[in-house]
Amino acid sequence: MRTQLDCIPCLIRQALDAARLTSRDPALHEGILRDMLRWTSGMDLSQPPPLMGQRIHRRLRALTGLEDPYRHAKEEQNRLGALLLAEAGAGAAGDPLERALRLAVAGNVIDLGVSGSLTESDVRAALGQALAQPLTGDLREFRRQADRARTILYLADNAGEIVFDRVLVAALAPARVVVAVRGGPVLNDATLADARAARMHEVAEVVDNGSDAPGTLLSDCSAAFRRLYAQADLVVAKGQGNFETLSRERKNICFLFKAKCPVIAEHAGVPLGAHVLWRARSRPGREA
Amino acid sequence: MRTQLDCIPCLIRQALDAARLTSRDPALHEGILRDMLRWTSGMDLSQPPPLMGQRIHRRLRALTGLEDPYRHAKEEQNRLGALLLAEAGAGAAGDPLERALRLAVAGNVIDLGVSGSLTESDVRAALGQALAQPLTGDLREFRRQADRARTILYLADNAGEIVFDRVLVAALAPARVVVAVRGGPVLNDATLADARAARMHEVAEVVDNGSDAPGTLLSDCSAAFRRLYAQADLVVAKGQGNFETLSRERKNICFLFKAKCPVIAEHAGVPLGAHVLWRARSRPGREA
Repeated sequence: MRTQLDCIPCLIRQALDAARLTSRDPALHEGILRDMLRWTSGMDLSQPPPLMGQRIHRRLRALTGLEDPYRHAKEEQNRLGALLLAEAGAGAAGDPLERALRLAVAGNVIDLGVSGSLTESDVRAALGQALAQPLTGDLREFRRQADRARTILYLADNAGEIVFDRVLVAALAPARVVVAVRGGPVLNDATLADARAARMHEVAEVVDNGSDAPGTLLSDCSAAFRRLYAQADLVVAKGQGNFETLSRERKNICFLFKAKCPVIAEHAGVPLGAHVLWRARSRPGREA
Repeated sequence: MRTQLDCIPCLIRQALDAARLTSRDPALHEGILRDMLRWTSGMDLSQPPPLMGQRIHRRLRALTGLEDPYRHAKEEQNRLGALLLAEAGAGAAGDPLERALRLAVAGNVIDLGVSGSLTESDVRAALGQALAQPLTGDLREFRRQADRARTILYLADNAGEIVFDRVLVAALAPARVVVAVRGGPVLNDATLADARAARMHEVAEVVDNGSDAPGTLLSDCSAAFRRLYAQADLVVAKGQGNFETLSRERKNICFLFKAKCPVIAEHAGVPLGAHVLWRARSRPGREA
C-alpha cells in the first residue's frame, strides 16, 4: 500500500507520541519531530507507511540508547493477554476455527503500545466486544485455503496479541505452520522474546524475519525468511502493518486485522472498526 | 503563544484540508504538504501558530491563482449568520450585554471554513447549544473595563461570526468602538467585504489591519492599525487566532473565544469546549 497524504500528519503525530513514551526529554521530542518533518518532506510515497515507522523507531533507539524501549510495555501486554485469554477460554463453544480466528483478530485490539494509557478493564471490555463482533470476510474461503495448504507462514503482529495468535496457530494443524516475528525491537511489535512469553514455540516453529520494520518489508527481511515466504502455500498476516506492507503482493495471503485507521479501511474496502479477514488473491488485478 | 509540538501535526493536517478545499489537483495537495513539512522542520517555535497559517494560505493563493479561495464560503457564512441571528433574536430576554457577549462567542461556533461540511441544521443546533452555555470568565470585570474605556478596538475573527459581533459592538456604545478585520483574504477570516455584508459599518467605524495572517501579528500589521491598537483603552479580541497571537501582550485585552483545541484550552487554563472570556492583564507576569 502506498503512503497516502492523509498518512503524513498521522505519522508525525505517532512520532511525537512515540518520543514521549520513550523519553521525558523535550529536546529529544522536538528533535525527533524535526527529523520526521524533514524526512517526510522528501518521502517516496510509493513506499508503505511502515517504512517511516522503522526509521522513526531506529532514531528513537539511537537517541535514547535503549535497545528495546517498549520491553516493559510488551511484557505487561503478554501478561495481560494470557490473563484475558484464560478468562475468554472459559465457556468457549461453537466452531473451533471460527472462534480461534475471532480471538486472533480480537487480540489485535490490545494495542497498548500506541496509546500507552489503556487500563486492564478497558482492554477486557474491548476484548469482550471484539469477540462478539462478526468477521468481515469470507470464512469459508479461509477454511478452504487452510485445508489445502501444506505449509503455512503465520506473520505475528504485536506483543500481547501473540498470546491469542497461539490459539489460531494451534487450530491450524501446527506441524505445517511456521510463525514469524519481527527481527528486532520496533514499537510494541512481537519479537522472539514475546513468542517465548506466549509459549508459541510449544505449538509451532518460530522464526524471526530479520527486519525491524513494523510490518513485513520483504526487501528488508533475511534471505531465510524470504525463502520461507516464497515456499509457503498460505501466508496468514496479522495486523495493519503487515497489511500495509504486503497488500500489493501476488501471493496467497489471508490478512487478519482490525481496521483502526480510515485510510486502511478504505484501501481494504471495509468499514472503519471492522474485524477483517481479507484475501489478496481474491482481488486479482487490484493495485492494492 | 508559542507553537507547541502538538500544534505541528495539526498544522500539517490543516494545510492538507485547506489544499483540498481550494483545489482538486492531487499534485497541488502533495506540493503544499511537502512545503509545509519542510517549513515546519525548521520552524521557530517561539512564534505563534498563525504565522504558519499565513504562510500556507499565501502559498495556496499563489498556486491556485485565486485571490480569495474562500470568498464563496464566506458569503454563505454571512448569509447563514444573518439568518440564524434573526432566529436567535426572537424572544431575547435578560441582560443585553451578557446576551450580546454570549451571541458573539456563540458565533465563533460557525467555523465552516475549517471543515467545510457543516450543514445549516448542524450550525443551527450548535448555535442553540452555544447560546445556552455559560461563559467561563469574569463578566463583571468585562463590564467594568467596558464602562471605563473611552476607546475600544474590536478585533473580528471569521465571516459569519462577524454578524454576531455586530450585536456586541452595538451593545458597547459603538461611537467609541473601531472594528478591525484582516487586511487580506486568509482562510474564512472576515475582511472588509464581510464587515460590509454584516452591516458592521452601520454601527461602528471599520478598518482593516493591513495583514493577511489568521490572527493579529502586530509586526505584520499596518502602522495605522498599530496606532489604533496602542491608543485603545480596551481591546476586545475574538477567536483563537487572535488569542494565539496576542495572549502574551501587556495590554488591556479581553479575549472572547470558544476553546476548540486542547493546546489553547490548556494555555488559557479552561476546559476544552469552554466559551471563554479571558483577560490578559488579569494574569500579570504570566508568560502566555
